[in-house]
Amino acid sequence: MSNKNQFDNKSQAWSARFSEPVSDLVKRYTASVFFDKRLALFDIQGSLAHAEMLAHVGVITSDDYANIQKGMAQITAEIQSGQFEWLLDLEDVHLNIEKRLVELIGDAGKRLHTGRSRNDQVATDIRLWLRNEIDHIIVLLKALRKALATLAVKEHATIMPGFTHLQVAQPITFGHHMLAYAEMFGRDIERLEDCRKRTNRLPLGAAALAGTTWPIDRQRVAQTLGFDSVCVNSLDAVSDRDFAIEFVAAASLIMMHISRFSEELVLWMSPRIGFIDLADRFCTGSSIMPQKKNPDVPELARGKTGRVYGHLQALLTLMKGQPLTYNKDNQEDKEGLFDSADTIRDTLTIFVDMIPGIRVKKERMETAAKEGFSTATDLADYLVRKGMPFRDAHETVALAVRQCEEKGCDLADLSLAELQTLHPSIGEDVFQFLTLEGSVSARKHIGGTAPERVLIEAHSILNE
Amino acid sequence: MSNKNQFDNKSQAWSARFSEPVSDLVKRYTASVFFDKRLALFDIQGSLAHAEMLAHVGVITSDDYANIQKGMAQITAEIQSGQFEWLLDLEDVHLNIEKRLVELIGDAGKRLHTGRSRNDQVATDIRLWLRNEIDHIIVLLKALRKALATLAVKEHATIMPGFTHLQVAQPITFGHHMLAYAEMFGRDIERLEDCRKRTNRLPLGAAALAGTTWPIDRQRVAQTLGFDSVCVNSLDAVSDRDFAIEFVAAASLIMMHISRFSEELVLWMSPRIGFIDLADRFCTGSSIMPQKKNPDVPELARGKTGRVYGHLQALLTLMKGQPLTYNKDNQEDKEGLFDSADTIRDTLTIFVDMIPGIRVKKERMETAAKEGFSTATDLADYLVRKGMPFRDAHETVALAVRQCEEKGCDLADLSLAELQTLHPSIGEDVFQFLTLEGSVSARKHIGGTAPERVLIEAHSILNE
Amino acid sequence: MSNKNQFDNKSQAWSARFSEPVSDLVKRYTASVFFDKRLALFDIQGSLAHAEMLAHVGVITSDDYANIQKGMAQITAEIQSGQFEWLLDLEDVHLNIEKRLVELIGDAGKRLHTGRSRNDQVATDIRLWLRNEIDHIIVLLKALRKALATLAVKEHATIMPGFTHLQVAQPITFGHHMLAYAEMFGRDIERLEDCRKRTNRLPLGAAALAGTTWPIDRQRVAQTLGFDSVCVNSLDAVSDRDFAIEFVAAASLIMMHISRFSEELVLWMSPRIGFIDLADRFCTGSSIMPQKKNPDVPELARGKTGRVYGHLQALLTLMKGQPLTYNKDNQEDKEGLFDSADTIRDTLTIFVDMIPGIRVKKERMETAAKEGFSTATDLADYLVRKGMPFRDAHETVALAVRQCEEKGCDLADLSLAELQTLHPSIGEDVFQFLTLEGSVSARKHIGGTAPERVLIEAHSILNE
Amino acid sequence: MSNKNQFDNKSQAWSARFSEPVSDLVKRYTASVFFDKRLALFDIQGSLAHAEMLAHVGVITSDDYANIQKGMAQITAEIQSGQFEWLLDLEDVHLNIEKRLVELIGDAGKRLHTGRSRNDQVATDIRLWLRNEIDHIIVLLKALRKALATLAVKEHATIMPGFTHLQVAQPITFGHHMLAYAEMFGRDIERLEDCRKRTNRLPLGAAALAGTTWPIDRQRVAQTLGFDSVCVNSLDAVSDRDFAIEFVAAASLIMMHISRFSEELVLWMSPRIGFIDLADRFCTGSSIMPQKKNPDVPELARGKTGRVYGHLQALLTLMKGQPLTYNKDNQEDKEGLFDSADTIRDTLTIFVDMIPGIRVKKERMETAAKEGFSTATDLADYLVRKGMPFRDAHETVALAVRQCEEKGCDLADLSLAELQTLHPSIGEDVFQFLTLEGSVSARKHIGGTAPERVLIEAHSILNE
Repeated sequence: MSNKNQFDNKSQAWSARFSEPVSDLVKRYTASVFFDKRLALFDIQGSLAHAEMLAHVGVITSDDYANIQKGMAQITAEIQSGQFEWLLDLEDVHLNIEKRLVELIGDAGKRLHTGRSRNDQVATDIRLWLRNEIDHIIVLLKALRKALATLAVKEHATIMPGFTHLQVAQPITFGHHMLAYAEMFGRDIERLEDCRKRTNRLPLGAAALAGTTWPIDRQRVAQTLGFDSVCVNSLDAVSDRDFAIEFVAAASLIMMHISRFSEELVLWMSPRIGFIDLADRFCTGSSIMPQKKNPDVPELARGKTGRVYGHLQALLTLMKGQPLTYNKDNQEDKEGLFDSADTIRDTLTIFVDMIPGIRVKKERMETAAKEGFSTATDLADYLVRKGMPFRDAHETVALAVRQCEEKGCDLADLSLAELQTLHPSIGEDVFQFLTLEGSVSARKHIGGTAPERVLIEAHSILNE
Repeated sequence: MSNKNQFDNKSQAWSARFSEPVSDLVKRYTASVFFDKRLALFDIQGSLAHAEMLAHVGVITSDDYANIQKGMAQITAEIQSGQFEWLLDLEDVHLNIEKRLVELIGDAGKRLHTGRSRNDQVATDIRLWLRNEIDHIIVLLKALRKALATLAVKEHATIMPGFTHLQVAQPITFGHHMLAYAEMFGRDIERLEDCRKRTNRLPLGAAALAGTTWPIDRQRVAQTLGFDSVCVNSLDAVSDRDFAIEFVAAASLIMMHISRFSEELVLWMSPRIGFIDLADRFCTGSSIMPQKKNPDVPELARGKTGRVYGHLQALLTLMKGQPLTYNKDNQEDKEGLFDSADTIRDTLTIFVDMIPGIRVKKERMETAAKEGFSTATDLADYLVRKGMPFRDAHETVALAVRQCEEKGCDLADLSLAELQTLHPSIGEDVFQFLTLEGSVSARKHIGGTAPERVLIEAHSILNE
Repeated sequence: MSNKNQFDNKSQAWSARFSEPVSDLVKRYTASVFFDKRLALFDIQGSLAHAEMLAHVGVITSDDYANIQKGMAQITAEIQSGQFEWLLDLEDVHLNIEKRLVELIGDAGKRLHTGRSRNDQVATDIRLWLRNEIDHIIVLLKALRKALATLAVKEHATIMPGFTHLQVAQPITFGHHMLAYAEMFGRDIERLEDCRKRTNRLPLGAAALAGTTWPIDRQRVAQTLGFDSVCVNSLDAVSDRDFAIEFVAAASLIMMHISRFSEELVLWMSPRIGFIDLADRFCTGSSIMPQKKNPDVPELARGKTGRVYGHLQALLTLMKGQPLTYNKDNQEDKEGLFDSADTIRDTLTIFVDMIPGIRVKKERMETAAKEGFSTATDLADYLVRKGMPFRDAHETVALAVRQCEEKGCDLADLSLAELQTLHPSIGEDVFQFLTLEGSVSARKHIGGTAPERVLIEAHSILNE
Repeated sequence: MSNKNQFDNKSQAWSARFSEPVSDLVKRYTASVFFDKRLALFDIQGSLAHAEMLAHVGVITSDDYANIQKGMAQITAEIQSGQFEWLLDLEDVHLNIEKRLVELIGDAGKRLHTGRSRNDQVATDIRLWLRNEIDHIIVLLKALRKALATLAVKEHATIMPGFTHLQVAQPITFGHHMLAYAEMFGRDIERLEDCRKRTNRLPLGAAALAGTTWPIDRQRVAQTLGFDSVCVNSLDAVSDRDFAIEFVAAASLIMMHISRFSEELVLWMSPRIGFIDLADRFCTGSSIMPQKKNPDVPELARGKTGRVYGHLQALLTLMKGQPLTYNKDNQEDKEGLFDSADTIRDTLTIFVDMIPGIRVKKERMETAAKEGFSTATDLADYLVRKGMPFRDAHETVALAVRQCEEKGCDLADLSLAELQTLHPSIGEDVFQFLTLEGSVSARKHIGGTAPERVLIEAHSILNE
């Protein structure tokens, strides 16, 4: 083992060419170890695959590889037990681990970095980490869809007012409403799966930027690490952060969906609306108003939307106008990415837990559905069936609604005689279209709000 | 044909229930016709497919359908010839066209809106429009990749300095550098293809929000319009703008790549660097400084990055916390989306044209590559091959670089004797690794910068 | 007058040095005339001030100045009457006007550009334009504050539930609620006034970037144009767009306030809440649901928030990492800025008009205020006055609320005996604190919700 | 002292009304103590001022106030020594401190919360904290301006090429270039001072939202805490986060300026340009390329721009469409705000330190200035002085530049005879305008690049 060591003090890592050490503030400003140590186990995983390949192609000996394995096993144990000492002076997760490895196994450790660079190493680590996050988030999204579908089955025939413009539009079923969110989270899964394909490519082997003169076998490393393929251009490999941005864009859409759902939960919990109640454990009270029960979780989730949007903008700004290849700017890719994944995971976990605790107040929903002439469209459709062109029927029903408003009654409260003033062909059968149940049951095509359709769609999700 | 007509004046479109007309400023503020008329032909395409289905299932007669076809053919002609009169009073593209249709064919026109709503209609129109845009943009991205690959073939052996931190790192080939961008634009194609899948689903049939009581056949309409499938939840169908956001996110990444390429073009055009020259037709001069030749196109393209990023943020903000289902907020989905697509199309078209006009100044690139000790890594690798652990070799070479800096020479200028002071095992063969050609040729693995590898990758793109 | 003319064809504006003309697509891509012609009158105003100064210091003759004045008067007339022909070939507003001037007055027109550049010229134009916009927007914000104050006076004693977390918290007055928005818009005025100071500085005289060799008098030009001062560094003067970003940031806050107000208007219009009604002219109906009355204006205004946020992000991205001084990227500064100002002006104008049309439904507000134990805090305060520490009182009242919930009554419905089980010292006087009127009237300190306080604050705004 | 205590366990803080405790995940999700404990000393400062006022108006006794002072002194000591135990169960900084206070001093501690709420309390804390941050940042910005001015004095006559479009435009002085940044940071100071005015207003006294029934004296508290005034509407006071957004918008502009400066530092450090060298302690090397010296600090600073832009977007998104008054969403206001301030402070501190370490390479700058026909404008101005209209002179010089390019020489290298072919009136005196020194010295008006002007402006900053 050599006496002189590049890592004795990170501030001298490149000291032979430098005439003064990096200042403490600069060290702290430029160090990443306090957030990138989170990548440690993925870093080790990548190093082991690299070492295995180096041994396979004969760049290092099998003894060296065995030593690297042994050293890394100990480092893993030290990290998992919290005993590993992370040093600011060693700047980042990579140098911290490599320094320790050299301490433990000497020259074999110094040979590990052959044919790679921190540039391709960190890109590999982030991809391994993100792939793992994506897989976890997909599991949560699937659980969320099933929770929504379960609630939809339970409430497949519960009628509520469907809103456009927060005005009562037409009666719908609560189950149908829940399944609208299941659709959104379903698309989120698709997007993450698509993003995973582009994440799961191996940059290792790009070295600093140009590739390496060592006879490396990148396909082998890709296979060991479970990557679908290798990045086919080394300059791109070390400077590409598309996958991170694509993930945060997908995460932004997830949070957007969460924000819409949260908005509705908060509205529905508001006393004048009062459509639902959330389980107490998702609510908090007030330090001054003893009567309060606040839907804190959906409100906070809604607030966290901005956080993820912000990370997306941060990453896009980061990469704007960056010349190839690696620039130190790129160190800023991690914290926002980490926080986006954490935010998504925590939020989805809570929502999976919260949904079964939604208590539906059917009576209030039904009362509300009856208030806003929600079957007016059904009356118009009825008139069309009697031969009136749709645009004329629409106009005719508008007059009827105005009449009701003046009388203070609902459409179903008009007498047949009154209805017939609208159009002589109106018969007794009109009343079955003016009930909430009649209205929803009639919409049974794919996508419609009918209870029977809700059951079909919900079971289809539950059977996934 | 009925005498009373819902469209006689749009300010009375819902007048039966309203006691005062919409004010002029409000009309202008809420109208969308001046930007959504761009959707006109897609609106007609969607209406025809809807009408065909209505006729097929017997909701309208085949005569009605024939009339609608005839009317729409005339309207199409009027629009294409610029004779169609767009009225602010009719608020949007849908009502403008429908009004004209009713004028032309009477009651059949009024029946067209049976079983649908503007909510699902506009969602269908945008998807049809966006699908078409995506297809055009993919064609442009493919052309851009081929332009880059063609240049890469031409300059596959042209050596330039590869930069990290804008410092000379290692020699690379200019062809390899061009292919890095080809990779980026290749991922952009993948992302657009993925986005297309989620765009190409039919919302029509969702009606206002709950579906319809008419016996519609949504699959038939989907097939007529070339959609892959139907949206399976009507509430989601009318309020989903994910596809638009996903598109603008993909567009943001395209612009990010363009901004990076532009940054480099501007740098390379700067006289101190002077690696390339752009054809005059992509440059402009100065109104005050007669000697200037400014790379306006890449600069402006770089500037337009912010524009698309801004649209992304606008759309995300728009949808944040929106309760289901349709709210008027959503009218704001269009302008940013349109402008994003336009910006991408114009920018890509210009870049496809500009790339063949890049004139490479090989000598300046080579001079630059020789200036920064760019083969230092090769020397370190050489030492490792002689048995020195990589980390020690790194340190040794740093000393050599310092020596050269003090002497004002390059590594290749040191004598064998001087080099042997670094390590006794250094032999004559070291000099072949210290040349630029030797350095790049040795990196011939997948992803490497070697000329032979560049040719392989470039031809693979050209043969796509 | 010279025969050869730099403007004969803009594509040859710098042709002496260029070997091929700019292509048509490039011309269209790089031209700004179709949006910057909006600056025309400010451009002329700036040119006249520049010419006056040039004449004053003797760089041009007074005859030249008189000719320039005459020419510009004619151009102004042509523009105002719509007869001015804007040419894409002349790229931007500046060259279009200058070319016309040279046509009209010959060599004197060619001398106008002495000692300036388009770089400082456009910076001056935008500042003149923006100053004018700011002044108009401040007028609108003041009108909006007065409209809110007028409504507050009218409804100073109208009681509604005050919400936190959309849960009923404490009774407040509707007037007080309106004044909360008056405060927000008041801060917006302050911010615009601060932004105006930094906008109102003269860049003219910076020439292309370095200043000029002509003996210009910048202070004189500043005075003529009403600028507070001159930009004291020429490099900064031509590349500074801070004022534009600062304006759009202030505009974003205005839209954020509008979005909050709109959210509440939409909520209050929703039938279950039903606190207010908006005048019909700010609402629209539905193409399918005849009964609908949708609060389109506040919804659309809420949606337009994203638009302005997006412009802010676009401008910030635009300027990120731009080296000094002028780069073509900066041409992208205008459209977002223009659209932000337009959006703000239209939105504020509509809101000023809409507010007097808000019809308050007092009974529904009062009913709602009674539903949520909104005087619980008052009971706690009462107990504290009787000697209980606040934190204990809070706990005690929570128990009382729970009791009421189980009984299905309000706090005021408990008998004295029941109340005394909470604390023996409770007396008859407790009931005056449990009424809504008692609760609001007691909060009469600065900032409090008491009717008398509302009147004070509202009149203070009305007297501004 | 009461036995029952609202804080015995935060999960029961509102337990009397709640039937189940908050789950652990929900607790962690909704807790803020791990980031808002940073506000602790400001929270105590606010509480003491509130208590002082309560004692003054007689709501609590002077004994209570004395106890509160004593308790808070101990808590302060515990926090400063790191002994204070922060409990997740107690959710936030406020409850943690209050709980400890009650432990230490009993009932007096429970009385502290009289007449206030966490809603106005947290708003007060953030304002106190932000005011302090603003003051520190202004100090740093002033130091940065002085550092730039000092460098400008040193290099007031150092000539470099001034760039537009990264093309050589005109010669400028390096000192002038440094002062351009001093201008930008000067505007940043102004903006922070303006933001400080709006930050420095007291929300305390707004209580939960409506004000309080206690006879509080808000002006007194404002005076104690050094606030300029009180927030005049309680609903606005608890929900206003404008000041935070305004601060982050100002911070975004600071980072934008930093990003522009960083871009230039990185460019200037790049070997082909090589205008400057940064002190080694702001640079790092490479783990693979031993010869590298990377300008890490400006690169990372440039990257951090996105971070602050992202926080701005996050806050704007957070507040978009939020109904009054306090919603849990608002808890998300802190982390981005904290991180923005930290980023600005660290970055400015480093830049203040880095600027004196900029080593200017005058010869390279001068060589570069000579390369791009940078005095072409001066020649044009000369011709105008000889009677040629500017636009014709511009065209004439363009021809001369073309001639030089073909000959491979600079304008100053043309013979008088050659120059006279351009215009017969050209005399020997032309050459004094074609030198770099002549060019810069002639631009001595306010804002110009002349050395004498640089000294005036720099000294004006140094004397501030």
